[in-house]
Amino acid sequence: MVYGEYLFLQKIFIVNLAPYKDAFLEYLKAEIIKDEPRNLYLPIEYILELGGKRLRPILVLIGYNLFRDDYDQAMEAALCLEMFHNFTLIHDDIMDKADLRRGEETVHKKWNINTGILSGDALMILSYKRLEYYKGEKYMHLMSLFNEVALEVCEGQQMDIDFETKSQVSLDEYFKMISYKTAVLIGCALKMGAIIASAEESDQESMYQFGLNLGIAFQLQDDYLDSFGSEDFGKKIGGDIVENKKTFLYITTMEKADNLDREKLLKLFANDIEPALKIKEVKQLYRKYKADALLEEEIEKFTFDAFKNVEALSMDASKKQVLIDFGNKLMKRKN
Amino acid sequence: MVYGEYLFLQKIFIVNLAPYKDAFLEYLKAEIIKDEPRNLYLPIEYILELGGKRLRPILVLIGYNLFRDDYDQAMEAALCLEMFHNFTLIHDDIMDKADLRRGEETVHKKWNINTGILSGDALMILSYKRLEYYKGEKYMHLMSLFNEVALEVCEGQQMDIDFETKSQVSLDEYFKMISYKTAVLIGCALKMGAIIASAEESDQESMYQFGLNLGIAFQLQDDYLDSFGSEDFGKKIGGDIVENKKTFLYITTMEKADNLDREKLLKLFANDIEPALKIKEVKQLYRKYKADALLEEEIEKFTFDAFKNVEALSMDASKKQVLIDFGNKLMKRKN
Repeated sequence: MVYGEYLFLQKIFIVNLAPYKDAFLEYLKAEIIKDEPRNLYLPIEYILELGGKRLRPILVLIGYNLFRDDYDQAMEAALCLEMFHNFTLIHDDIMDKADLRRGEETVHKKWNINTGILSGDALMILSYKRLEYYKGEKYMHLMSLFNEVALEVCEGQQMDIDFETKSQVSLDEYFKMISYKTAVLIGCALKMGAIIASAEESDQESMYQFGLNLGIAFQLQDDYLDSFGSEDFGKKIGGDIVENKKTFLYITTMEKADNLDREKLLKLFANDIEPALKIKEVKQLYRKYKADALLEEEIEKFTFDAFKNVEALSMDASKKQVLIDFGNKLMKRKN
Repeated sequence: MVYGEYLFLQKIFIVNLAPYKDAFLEYLKAEIIKDEPRNLYLPIEYILELGGKRLRPILVLIGYNLFRDDYDQAMEAALCLEMFHNFTLIHDDIMDKADLRRGEETVHKKWNINTGILSGDALMILSYKRLEYYKGEKYMHLMSLFNEVALEVCEGQQMDIDFETKSQVSLDEYFKMISYKTAVLIGCALKMGAIIASAEESDQESMYQFGLNLGIAFQLQDDYLDSFGSEDFGKKIGGDIVENKKTFLYITTMEKADNLDREKLLKLFANDIEPALKIKEVKQLYRKYKADALLEEEIEKFTFDAFKNVEALSMDASKKQVLIDFGNKLMKRKN
C-alpha cells in the first residue's frame, strides 16, 4: 500500500475526535483541584484550563479505544500525560522567556519565576500520582514507560538548548532532539492506552512506533510551516529564522550550500538584521538548496513509516483507519 | 520511661552511622551517571557529589536494617530520596537566589537558571526511576508514599514562600510548613526502609511517625540554633532574623508581646536596620517573652514524642536503641 492510497481511504472514513476531547475535558474539569496552598495550585489550574489541542490525552483514549470500548479506564493516564505536558510548558516558558501561551499570559509572567518553578514541580508530581489508579504489572509497565519518556523529554529540551550555542548540528542530532522533545510523548500516549487495554506486546510496540514516527513528522511539519506556511491563519511566518533556530531547513542548507552561500547563511544568523529582510534572504537560500522540498519528502517518509506501523497492528482495517485518519488530519493542517 | 532515661541509655549503646554512610557513598559513586547530554547530567553529578550529611539515605538503610540484615536491598530507595532531596535543593537555591551550597557554588550560579530548572527536573525523574527496582505490591506502596510526600514537600516550600509576604502566621501554620518542608521526608525515609524490609504495617507507621516527630524537632532546633546557637563552629548567628523569617521564635513573641513590643518587633522586621543591631534587639525581645525557652520545650516535646513512637515498635530493645541513639545524636548537635 502506498501513501496515496492511505490518503484516499481517509476520504471514506472520517474519525471524529470531538467525543474523546469532550470526554477528556469533562473529566479534567471535575478533577481540577481547588487545593491549598492556593499559590501553588492556582497556577496549575490556570494552565490546565488554558486550552490547547489536548493531543496527548486524546491519543491515550484512542490508544485504549482501539482495543476496548470503555475508554473511561484510560482517563487517568490521559490526565497524567496532559499534566506532564503542561508541567513542561510551564518550565519551558520560563527557559524561553515566553510571555504568552495560547494567547494568554504564561505562568511565570502572570505570577513570577519562582511560582512557575514550584508549580511546575508540583504538577509533575501530580502527573505521577495519576498513574496510581492502575495496579500490579500494568502499573509497573506504565511507570517504567513514563519514567523513560519523561527523562527523554528533558534530554530533548537540553539538546534544543545546546543547539543554540553549538556551531554545528548534524541531522542525526536534530532528529534525536525532536524525537525526544516531542515525539516520544506521542508514542507514549498511544502505548499507554494499549497497555491499559491489555493489548498484545507487539501491538503496544507498534502503537509506540506509530506515535514516534507521526510525532517526528508533526514536528518536521511545524518547522516547514514556520518558514513556508501560510499567514492566512494569523500565524507569523519566520519565527524560527528570526530566532536563529537550527532546524532541518537550516542544517540541510548548511550541508548542501557552496562556501559562499554557507558564509552568507552564517552571517544572516550571526548578525542583527531587520527581521523581514532576514526571513526573505534565508528562505531564498533554503529554496535554492531545495531544503524545503527535502523537508517535505522527510515529512512524507515519516508519515508513511507511521502508517506502516499501523499495518503491523493485529486489528480490523476499520480500526486501523482511525489511526490513519488521525495521522492525515494532523498532517494536513496548514498552520 | 522519661526523656532522661533515653539520654542515659544513649551512653550505653552507641550506634555507628559511618558504615551506612560509607556504604551509601560507595553505591552512589558507582551509580553516578556519565550520561548525555552532558549539560543536563553534569550539574546532577555535581550536586550529588557536593557532600552533605546524607541523612535521608542513611535513614532508609537504618529503617531497613532494623528489620533485616541485607540492607543493600534498600540502596535504590536510599538513592531515590537523596536524588529527590538534591532536586529540591537545586530548585530551592534558584528560588532563594542562593549563591553557595555546602561551601560551593550552587548549580544555577555555576551554570545558569535554565540549567538549574532542567537538571532539577531530570533529577526528580531519576529519583522516580530508582524505585523501579522494587516490584509488585511493594513498588505500589513505595510509590504512593513517595508521591504523597513529594507533593507535601512542594506544598511546604510554597507555604514558606507565602509566609514571607503574609502579615500574620499562626503556630499551626508554622508547624504544618516545617512538617511538610522537612519532616515528612525524614518519616518517608524510615518508612521506605520498613516497607522494603516487609515490616508489619503498624511498625511502618511507627517508623514514619518517629521520623516525622524527629524531623520537626530537628527543624525547630535549626531555628533555635540560628538565633541562639554558638558561633564557635563558624556558623553565622541571626540569619533568620536578618531575613525576617517568621520562625517559631518570631510567631511566639508576636503572640505574647504587649502592644508596644509587638510594634517594635514589627518595625525591626519591616525596616532596613544594621544587621548586628537588629539581631541584638530582636533576640532581646525573643528572650523577654521566653520564646527561646518555649522553643526548647517544643524541641524536647517532639523528641520525646519521637521516642514514644520507638517504644511502640515490635522489636528488641537493643534495636530500638539505634533509633533513640540516632535521635539523640541529631538533637545534641550545637550547630
